[in-house]
Amino acid sequence: MMREAPLPPGSTIGILGGGQLGRMLAAAASRLGLKTHIYSDEDNAPAFDVAAEATVAPYTDTQALEHFAASADVVTCEFENVPAASLEAAGRAAKVFPPPKSFAVAQDRLAEKDFIAGFSIGVAPYAGVESLDDLRSGLARVKLPALIKTRRLGYDGKGQALIRVARDAEDAWAAIGRVHAVLEGVVLFEREVSVIAVRGQEGTLGFYDPVENVHENGILAMSRVPADISASTAFEARRIAGAIAEALGHVGVIAIEMFERADGSLIVNEFAPRVHNSGHWTLDACVVSQFENHVRAIAGWPLGDTARHSDAVMTNLIGADVEQWRALAAEPGTAVHLYGKAEARPGRKMGHYTRLYPKR
Amino acid sequence: MMREAPLPPGSTIGILGGGQLGRMLAAAASRLGLKTHIYSDEDNAPAFDVAAEATVAPYTDTQALEHFAASADVVTCEFENVPAASLEAAGRAAKVFPPPKSFAVAQDRLAEKDFIAGFSIGVAPYAGVESLDDLRSGLARVKLPALIKTRRLGYDGKGQALIRVARDAEDAWAAIGRVHAVLEGVVLFEREVSVIAVRGQEGTLGFYDPVENVHENGILAMSRVPADISASTAFEARRIAGAIAEALGHVGVIAIEMFERADGSLIVNEFAPRVHNSGHWTLDACVVSQFENHVRAIAGWPLGDTARHSDAVMTNLIGADVEQWRALAAEPGTAVHLYGKAEARPGRKMGHYTRLYPKR
Repeated sequence: MMREAPLPPGSTIGILGGGQLGRMLAAAASRLGLKTHIYSDEDNAPAFDVAAEATVAPYTDTQALEHFAASADVVTCEFENVPAASLEAAGRAAKVFPPPKSFAVAQDRLAEKDFIAGFSIGVAPYAGVESLDDLRSGLARVKLPALIKTRRLGYDGKGQALIRVARDAEDAWAAIGRVHAVLEGVVLFEREVSVIAVRGQEGTLGFYDPVENVHENGILAMSRVPADISASTAFEARRIAGAIAEALGHVGVIAIEMFERADGSLIVNEFAPRVHNSGHWTLDACVVSQFENHVRAIAGWPLGDTARHSDAVMTNLIGADVEQWRALAAEPGTAVHLYGKAEARPGRKMGHYTRLYPKR
Repeated sequence: MMREAPLPPGSTIGILGGGQLGRMLAAAASRLGLKTHIYSDEDNAPAFDVAAEATVAPYTDTQALEHFAASADVVTCEFENVPAASLEAAGRAAKVFPPPKSFAVAQDRLAEKDFIAGFSIGVAPYAGVESLDDLRSGLARVKLPALIKTRRLGYDGKGQALIRVARDAEDAWAAIGRVHAVLEGVVLFEREVSVIAVRGQEGTLGFYDPVENVHENGILAMSRVPADISASTAFEARRIAGAIAEALGHVGVIAIEMFERADGSLIVNEFAPRVHNSGHWTLDACVVSQFENHVRAIAGWPLGDTARHSDAVMTNLIGADVEQWRALAAEPGTAVHLYGKAEARPGRKMGHYTRLYPKR
């Protein structure tokens, strides 16, 4: 890619999506003297509170998208399920990063598996499923227990069903709505690890230290760094993350979730072509956070230092957990982050807190 | 003071002043799920980019101030020279912190000296000046060289003149505009130190580690932490800062500038009842920054941890210095902050950068 000049301070970053990720991206952009314009389909999106401009319109409104993009010097996304046509509409009026391929692969669980497996990175046994017959023949290959997941638009445990025994197959197929899906063998693992990487427009790569994640009810509950993994596993995790970012020609932050098996080997579960919940600790434990590094990458700035000055444990505040804010705010060594969401619905990410510890 | 409930997430902080301090306060408020409404007399004030609401009106427009304050749950200031009548106007519609006394004392250099000297904290020899005769008699007491400073509205080296020899007196008196002034003996000192303290509504005090400051042309150039002072001097610096904050009944962040003399004793130069340039390093080297702690204090939240996880050197980007942004952004261990100001006028604070080092 041609070396282009970085966007100077005063430029505008357009962000599709107005949730907590957009909010923290906007705050990070402000550190660099950059303005943000947030596009959301919701009134009162949390990111509006820290942005210079806001547009409320559906993600399918190509005219509004073009108008929005025309006001920005570069456009990015806080979520991966933005329709390809929306990205194209924005792309007619501004540069868009990450590039289309990152979204296309991440939006389709089967394409994602094929892509990752295609260059000899381990994945769970899987099979594409377009019918109940496919599902039955797939089960013979991937073994029980298995998960069936819709190919598109699933996150945080939605759009998937567990198949424990063969007779669950029909119910599972019904549960996900009989849509194109991918069947995955459930893999035993010791721990879930993720790597937050960032890739610049000229191909420079940066990596935060691998994180150990704990999920509850299909939602990330806690991320801890350093992960309790060997130096060689950490090295391999980074290699995998770099290989995926490279192969996508990705620009911006990308999060790769992996499982470490008992033998120390890693398989990739999935990736998200964006800033990620398992990287929130970087706000408080690193010189430059994942949010700022994403902004730097898409704005053509030099990538920032990903070094970690502290050990950290990040815990999400889900739904009513947020009521703990006052007690948490009083705890030493604790940074509290609340997302400005009015209603604490069950399962909704309302905030997080990060406890810092001296580096071991 | 009665114990009141802290402002819940979703509340609005009104900030008088829209410069870089307001901008960083607004970004800090957003971490806590709080919204901000910025009041500035300038179009396109830097803080507008990260605020939910903005009002552009003169600081003397009491109707606009009342309207602004009515939209906020608490009002604060990013600068100390806001007129008392403006604070009163805001106070008719919302709580205002810091309290009026902090502003009244800080706005008048003579009142400030009297206040500090009043409880046996060292200050430079000084004398109130209302006429050329006062000035001449004052010089006999404070000794040469001396500085004459207007009692009101001076900052960053403006509104003051140096008197080296007695015959300079008349010119100096003319240079400051023959207004009520304070004459100060120029004190020899080893270094300038500042302490950033924060005081909560219930009187709780927090202190950041003392900072060593270097000024150039009357403007802060660099702040370094830890300061090269003994543990007992650091203890004394903190004691002085706490005594001043207490005596004012201050709520919020307060910055106290002191000189360390060759014998290790401290004299107070001045204080600012607000977040301060010499505390910008706390954004990157502490769990909770001065900006967030100011917001916590005025919102009635528990104060946040002021502990420092790293050593730090903060350097201001003044005027054309800001052109270094691209090179600085590429430096390891360096956090770059730009304020979103369009025009890099000489002497204008355009940004700063903080280099972090492992704690010694």
